[in-house]
Amino acid sequence: MTKRRHRYSEKNLGTSPGTVTYVGQEIEHATHIRRVEYNAETYRIDESGRLSACRLPADDTPFVTWVDVDGIHQSQVIEAIGDQYKLHPLLLEDVVNTHQKPKLEPYDDTTMFVTLKMLHYDDSLAEIDSEHVSLVLGKNFVVSFQEERTNDIFDPVLNRIKASAGKTRRNGADYLFYALLDVIVDHYFSVLERVGERLDILEDHIVQQQAGQPTLTMLYALKRELNFMRRVVWPVREMIGMMMREESVLIKATLQPYLRDLYDHVSQVIETLDSYRELIPGLMDLHLSTVSNRMNSVMKTLTIFSAIFMPLTFIVGVYGMNFEHMPELSWHYGYYTVWGIMGVVTVALVIYFKKRGWM
Amino acid sequence: MTKRRHRYSEKNLGTSPGTVTYVGQEIEHATHIRRVEYNAETYRIDESGRLSACRLPADDTPFVTWVDVDGIHQSQVIEAIGDQYKLHPLLLEDVVNTHQKPKLEPYDDTTMFVTLKMLHYDDSLAEIDSEHVSLVLGKNFVVSFQEERTNDIFDPVLNRIKASAGKTRRNGADYLFYALLDVIVDHYFSVLERVGERLDILEDHIVQQQAGQPTLTMLYALKRELNFMRRVVWPVREMIGMMMREESVLIKATLQPYLRDLYDHVSQVIETLDSYRELIPGLMDLHLSTVSNRMNSVMKTLTIFSAIFMPLTFIVGVYGMNFEHMPELSWHYGYYTVWGIMGVVTVALVIYFKKRGWM
Amino acid sequence: MTKRRHRYSEKNLGTSPGTVTYVGQEIEHATHIRRVEYNAETYRIDESGRLSACRLPADDTPFVTWVDVDGIHQSQVIEAIGDQYKLHPLLLEDVVNTHQKPKLEPYDDTTMFVTLKMLHYDDSLAEIDSEHVSLVLGKNFVVSFQEERTNDIFDPVLNRIKASAGKTRRNGADYLFYALLDVIVDHYFSVLERVGERLDILEDHIVQQQAGQPTLTMLYALKRELNFMRRVVWPVREMIGMMMREESVLIKATLQPYLRDLYDHVSQVIETLDSYRELIPGLMDLHLSTVSNRMNSVMKTLTIFSAIFMPLTFIVGVYGMNFEHMPELSWHYGYYTVWGIMGVVTVALVIYFKKRGWM
Amino acid sequence: MTKRRHRYSEKNLGTSPGTVTYVGQEIEHATHIRRVEYNAETYRIDESGRLSACRLPADDTPFVTWVDVDGIHQSQVIEAIGDQYKLHPLLLEDVVNTHQKPKLEPYDDTTMFVTLKMLHYDDSLAEIDSEHVSLVLGKNFVVSFQEERTNDIFDPVLNRIKASAGKTRRNGADYLFYALLDVIVDHYFSVLERVGERLDILEDHIVQQQAGQPTLTMLYALKRELNFMRRVVWPVREMIGMMMREESVLIKATLQPYLRDLYDHVSQVIETLDSYRELIPGLMDLHLSTVSNRMNSVMKTLTIFSAIFMPLTFIVGVYGMNFEHMPELSWHYGYYTVWGIMGVVTVALVIYFKKRGWM
Amino acid sequence: MTKRRHRYSEKNLGTSPGTVTYVGQEIEHATHIRRVEYNAETYRIDESGRLSACRLPADDTPFVTWVDVDGIHQSQVIEAIGDQYKLHPLLLEDVVNTHQKPKLEPYDDTTMFVTLKMLHYDDSLAEIDSEHVSLVLGKNFVVSFQEERTNDIFDPVLNRIKASAGKTRRNGADYLFYALLDVIVDHYFSVLERVGERLDILEDHIVQQQAGQPTLTMLYALKRELNFMRRVVWPVREMIGMMMREESVLIKATLQPYLRDLYDHVSQVIETLDSYRELIPGLMDLHLSTVSNRMNSVMKTLTIFSAIFMPLTFIVGVYGMNFEHMPELSWHYGYYTVWGIMGVVTVALVIYFKKRGWM
Ligand SMILES: [Mg+2]
Ligand SMILES: [Mg+2]
Ligand SMILES: [Mg+2]
Ligand SMILES: [Mg+2]
Ligand SMILES: [Mg+2]
Ligand SMILES: [Mg+2]
Ligand SMILES: [Mg+2]
Ligand SMILES: [Mg+2]
Ligand SMILES: [Mg+2]
Ligand SMILES: [Mg+2]
Ligand SMILES: [Mg+2]
Ligand SMILES: [Mg+2]
Ligand SMILES: [Mg+2]
Ligand SMILES: [Mg+2]
Ligand SMILES: [Mg+2]
Ligand SMILES: [Mg+2]
Ligand SMILES: [Mg+2]
Ligand SMILES: [Mg+2]
Ligand SMILES: [Mg+2]
Ligand SMILES: [Mg+2]
Ligand SMILES: [Mg+2]
Ligand SMILES: [Mg+2]
Ligand SMILES: [Mg+2]
Ligand SMILES: [Mg+2]
Ligand SMILES: [Mg+2]
Ligand SMILES: [Mg+2]
Ligand SMILES: [Mg+2]
Ligand SMILES: [Mg+2]
Ligand SMILES: [Mg+2]
Ligand SMILES: [Mg+2]
Ligand SMILES: [Mg+2]
Repeated sequence: MTKRRHRYSEKNLGTSPGTVTYVGQEIEHATHIRRVEYNAETYRIDESGRLSACRLPADDTPFVTWVDVDGIHQSQVIEAIGDQYKLHPLLLEDVVNTHQKPKLEPYDDTTMFVTLKMLHYDDSLAEIDSEHVSLVLGKNFVVSFQEERTNDIFDPVLNRIKASAGKTRRNGADYLFYALLDVIVDHYFSVLERVGERLDILEDHIVQQQAGQPTLTMLYALKRELNFMRRVVWPVREMIGMMMREESVLIKATLQPYLRDLYDHVSQVIETLDSYRELIPGLMDLHLSTVSNRMNSVMKTLTIFSAIFMPLTFIVGVYGMNFEHMPELSWHYGYYTVWGIMGVVTVALVIYFKKRGWM
Repeated sequence: MTKRRHRYSEKNLGTSPGTVTYVGQEIEHATHIRRVEYNAETYRIDESGRLSACRLPADDTPFVTWVDVDGIHQSQVIEAIGDQYKLHPLLLEDVVNTHQKPKLEPYDDTTMFVTLKMLHYDDSLAEIDSEHVSLVLGKNFVVSFQEERTNDIFDPVLNRIKASAGKTRRNGADYLFYALLDVIVDHYFSVLERVGERLDILEDHIVQQQAGQPTLTMLYALKRELNFMRRVVWPVREMIGMMMREESVLIKATLQPYLRDLYDHVSQVIETLDSYRELIPGLMDLHLSTVSNRMNSVMKTLTIFSAIFMPLTFIVGVYGMNFEHMPELSWHYGYYTVWGIMGVVTVALVIYFKKRGWM
Repeated sequence: MTKRRHRYSEKNLGTSPGTVTYVGQEIEHATHIRRVEYNAETYRIDESGRLSACRLPADDTPFVTWVDVDGIHQSQVIEAIGDQYKLHPLLLEDVVNTHQKPKLEPYDDTTMFVTLKMLHYDDSLAEIDSEHVSLVLGKNFVVSFQEERTNDIFDPVLNRIKASAGKTRRNGADYLFYALLDVIVDHYFSVLERVGERLDILEDHIVQQQAGQPTLTMLYALKRELNFMRRVVWPVREMIGMMMREESVLIKATLQPYLRDLYDHVSQVIETLDSYRELIPGLMDLHLSTVSNRMNSVMKTLTIFSAIFMPLTFIVGVYGMNFEHMPELSWHYGYYTVWGIMGVVTVALVIYFKKRGWM
Repeated sequence: MTKRRHRYSEKNLGTSPGTVTYVGQEIEHATHIRRVEYNAETYRIDESGRLSACRLPADDTPFVTWVDVDGIHQSQVIEAIGDQYKLHPLLLEDVVNTHQKPKLEPYDDTTMFVTLKMLHYDDSLAEIDSEHVSLVLGKNFVVSFQEERTNDIFDPVLNRIKASAGKTRRNGADYLFYALLDVIVDHYFSVLERVGERLDILEDHIVQQQAGQPTLTMLYALKRELNFMRRVVWPVREMIGMMMREESVLIKATLQPYLRDLYDHVSQVIETLDSYRELIPGLMDLHLSTVSNRMNSVMKTLTIFSAIFMPLTFIVGVYGMNFEHMPELSWHYGYYTVWGIMGVVTVALVIYFKKRGWM
Repeated sequence: MTKRRHRYSEKNLGTSPGTVTYVGQEIEHATHIRRVEYNAETYRIDESGRLSACRLPADDTPFVTWVDVDGIHQSQVIEAIGDQYKLHPLLLEDVVNTHQKPKLEPYDDTTMFVTLKMLHYDDSLAEIDSEHVSLVLGKNFVVSFQEERTNDIFDPVLNRIKASAGKTRRNGADYLFYALLDVIVDHYFSVLERVGERLDILEDHIVQQQAGQPTLTMLYALKRELNFMRRVVWPVREMIGMMMREESVLIKATLQPYLRDLYDHVSQVIETLDSYRELIPGLMDLHLSTVSNRMNSVMKTLTIFSAIFMPLTFIVGVYGMNFEHMPELSWHYGYYTVWGIMGVVTVALVIYFKKRGWM
């Protein structure tokens, strides 16, 4: 439950707009940079990690260039790349601010900027872990910025480039840009799968009336995660819609069916999310009703015990009195008569409670 | 409650877009293919099931051709058909993905693609079973893809083609396309009918105060089914609206009143669905209030018993004490006096509780 | 609670679109047809009931013709009228389907079709009874179709035609069309009046804390009725809005202020409906809080009785023990001392409970 | 709680549209009419009350004319004024129908009609009292119709006209029209102030846990009042927005900033209203939680008393038995031993309940 | 809880529109005025506080002029400034009305007026304190009006002007206008941070089941604060959107990316606000469920005690009766037999309750 704390730094209050300050968890490793150049015939990869790998490709190069920056916590690296590619200071500010929400921003006609969240499901914490990702699309290059995590989500794309001269290799920078977005959206489905499994377990607990306070606390936490995911995925749909309508020279007509497909997939993510979210109030109601029914049953048990034994205890109390003149006490069958009366009272009460449906 | 699990396959993570992989329940039978050709004068049906039945009709054929593919789990069959009709890989991906939500997509001016869900009500499971259906409309042909089920929903359309040279036979491929959609929408009403009957039964249980936890669990399950149906039917309306506005050469002007009628029927399905959905919170409240009232009645019973017998038991306890000096014990009418006092106390309490409206 | 059942007939599954099949309650009487012809100078009424009364008026007749069809359950009659006035089969299907929701549909430029619900409040069932009404406006005629009920809602319009050469007589078919809609909308106010009275009664019960389970069941039923009415009235407003914007030759400019007035009245109906609907959750909450308060009061009574008598009963129990060596038993004032102690305990507990505000 | 009853009169069912029938509370006094004529130099007031005061001003008069009609229950007076100013029968119907909701309607280019509600807070009933007000703006005149109340809301405007040649005197009929609307909207703030004070009191009761059923009933009544006020104020905003966009010759460009200001004030009224309305569910929840906590505390008290005294009473019961052979009875310290045991039991239970946090 | 009271002054009822009357908390200090003039080369500051510091800058001055008015409670000062800068009386009315909601209003093409709220979090009251701020943008000047608080929120902007010839100094009046808005929006994040910390604490209390009535009261108060903040921030987004679309000569094209960034930040504030607001009902439900579970546990304890001791007390009561003929009393092992029976009864009940899961 520590997720929400320390979201906004007091230090940033009143600084000049466009100041590149990393906002996020503290990280120690150095930023890792990888440059990939490819076309239908060949490809080459520079993993030297030196800043020189970031140089702007020549305007007439026959290659598509992909610069992947893994780690956004070193301002000087980000600023150096910004210099090379002539990126606006406000764009760089968004690259390093991990609290920035997803958005698409065209800068002039030569650059398209997108920032969004990559999601992983963290099983140990039962939480969705989000990674801040930014993509810059130019005429013949893509620069991708990501936080540092153990698994790199862009590996499948790199593998396809290495594997064969397939769709990615035969197409331009815009297809690469799309392919990176596609792999991010594919991961949303995988996160949903895990969340859905968890929700199934909680649902089963509640439906089978085995839920206690921990189940409810987990349900509440799940709702928070779903709300978080919704806020992070919702703007992505709008973003892709804008890319489809935007008449940018950077995006070729052949990409349209792919963008439409991507739009469709994000819609499906949002819809599934919403279907999960709308289950939760119903589950809560179901649980409350279970608790009420249990309470009812407890109270009935108590009432039946009380209603049967209180009259009996009263009767035996009567004949425990010490009056000198109590004729019944000397009757020969007095004791047995009292047992008989008590039997009749008990039977009558049992019949009464059966009739009311309490037993 | 196993419906939601295993919706998205981990295998698909990061595969290249447009890969034709069946996503759905495992099925063993082979795909069945039927080719129907007809015009106002005659018709012929090829049920051989060979792939040759899928060949593209000549551009100037005087027939309307309907290829009905029953079973979408064999990728190679789907890909072969895709080759014949020049269908986009992303279209084929949607045909075999049973989790794909309903949508309409025009591909160029020569193909209109629609995918949606056919619904059946499964009485044994008290669940709505959905079947993934896709329709491709060309100049003079329709290709329909469906999952395999025991009943074929398109039989009534086939029967009308066989029966006489009616509206279907006298019109073009667009009317056939419409007729297939119409029969799917007609089935939605039939599913709603069954859901409505079930809701009536649950409502009667709750209104007559006979509902226990199973009723509520069923109500919750029904709400889930209604939410599922809503998500599946809602985009169909939008889809038909798009067909009406779309100025496609594939759809003739004479179809407009029929599309408007179809739109109207889907609207009616959605409205009825919503009227069912909005009953559920009211029923839940009614039930909770019943439980509260019952609890109140249990507590009153307990309180009345306790309030009457506790004073009486105290009184008889007093005269059960063994003090040497207790004058009342030796009174001649002491015992009867105590009975008298207890009678007065009982009557007073009964009057008190009657006045408060508890008895 | 039988209203919702059997809404959609299984027979209709997969029939050809445009089949004229009556869907509604079973009715035995024959359809009754009345033809009224009038202008500012004169009027004549044909109540013979023969189909000949339905003939299409000549294009240059100086009269406005109103054909009122009372009863829509005989398909052959409806089809015969459809033939005369050249009505589309889908239009006729809507005329005889009592589950059809309200809508306006222009057919070509020569016919305007409207279908909506007439509402009556049925006091004996405490339910809103709906009657399916359809109106067809042509150049110089109106055809009205209605279900059969004991009271005919169009009587006031007929009476105004008979009474004097007022607005209705001096205007064309469009004014008649409006006047019929106006009388239907006027009845909505009257239904609301009855519903409002019922809601007042339930509200008074709940506010005065006299409500039990029957009150809540009635409140739930009322909510269902209001939801039903809302679904039936809501599209009427949109429908009249369309008539105002529609530039049809069938509707003259002088009708505009009247349509605007009608629109305004339907808006008022919807608004009042909504104001009633939004009272219901508040009433439910108020009732639940009453029940909770009552329960609290019951529990306090029980606790006070228990807390006072359990210590006293314990004390008298102590001196009912039979130990040989119990010094207090032989004290001369032992018995009175015990009474004194019990008095002190009682007073202390009473003070305690008064302080906590429970007495 | 009698406010809602008898809203729509059965008499009006099916009457011809445009019939001028007063719908509202019964009133006995005669209608009072006042004519004010002014310009920057001078003003004159005719309070004779005769119908002649209503005559239409000449087209070229140098004065602005304001006819204020106080009382709308005498149809013949309203119809006479309608004749003078050539007002449409449907307009007059709205003037005398106190249930008419607020709206703006332009009639031709020469008349602008506005009807809305003046609100007063009635302290004795703790209710908002609404007064039906209608304003007609012509080229150089304003006619205002209002219900009769003890205070006249338009007095401040009249006083400004009498006081000096200020903004009102120097501007035309459109400014007068605006000034009358402004004074009505100003009163909305004053009503809100009173409602806010009441809500504060109820909130304090609930937060300080002193609320009982009367507080909740008042909260419910307040919610009804706020809903009523919202329905009455909401359309006023839209109305003023229409006046701003409407390109009418009746409204001069210099009025625009004033209308924008008025629009802004109505928005502020609506927003404050909504902020009040959204407090209510939270207060209800807070109260329910208070009741639950109290109940919990009552139940704990009962359980502690029972759990302590039931074992003790059992123990003393054991030694109240009359068996001939009970060795403990003849022990010399038997009686004291029992007291010791009971002390231990009591202390153990007290420790147990303290540990569970119940004491 | 005194925040809402006395919001609207009765004095203002019916005053002429455009009257400059301060509406807000009473303040005693005099208004403080500061004039800053700067360009890329130099700057000068006049803190004399005399009204002369407010004079309108010449049209051709090479400086940007910023007049900062600290304190809006002295009408004569505000009116004097209004005279200098030719501000509309309605604009001045909004400057001094601290209840005015945020808005942007262009006056002619030469003046842009903005009013909004500066927010501070007041730790001692656990409340958001709002300060009414208004900004006027002219061709080469900005006039800012603010309430008087101990901290001046515009200090960082002044410091940047003094510090170096940075972005603020090199740009025009429009950039200053933006920079003032930016610093206000930055403070919103800081308020949210504090609110989020508070919400975390309340959430932890509830999740760890330590919440009592004070936690709920604080949760309710927090919801009120969030609602208040939402009403105050929401219109700011719309306002900045208008500034972006507005084609005003006062705002240069180079400001667009900055405005877009500001828009984005306000969106982020609103989104975070909404994410906080939607947590609250879930927390309330979680708490109610905790209370129910606790109650259940209390009731089970009571029932177990009662169900065990009531039969035992009855049994010992039986052998406390004084009948002359009770054979068991003279049995040699009678007393031990009774203990045995009571042991069996107790064990049986314990097993029964363990089976039901109550122990
Ligand atoms: Mg998070
Ligand atoms: Mg900053
Ligand atoms: Mg992160
Ligand atoms: Mg990474
Ligand atoms: Mg994908
Ligand atoms: Mg796809
Ligand atoms: Mg609730
Ligand atoms: Mg499903
Ligand atoms: Mg993929
Ligand atoms: Mg399926
Ligand atoms: Mg099938
Ligand atoms: Mg159909
Ligand atoms: Mg139809
Ligand atoms: Mg059909
Ligand atoms: Mg009916
Ligand atoms: Mg009828
Ligand atoms: Mg009417
Ligand atoms: Mg109904
Ligand atoms: Mg009217
Ligand atoms: Mg009428
Ligand atoms: Mg009134
Ligand atoms: Mg008046
Ligand atoms: Mg005003
Ligand atoms: Mg009212
Ligand atoms: Mg203002
Ligand atoms: Mg405040
Ligand atoms: Mg004023
Ligand atoms: Mg303030
Ligand atoms: Mg200040
Ligand atoms: Mg900023
Ligand atoms: Mg930014």
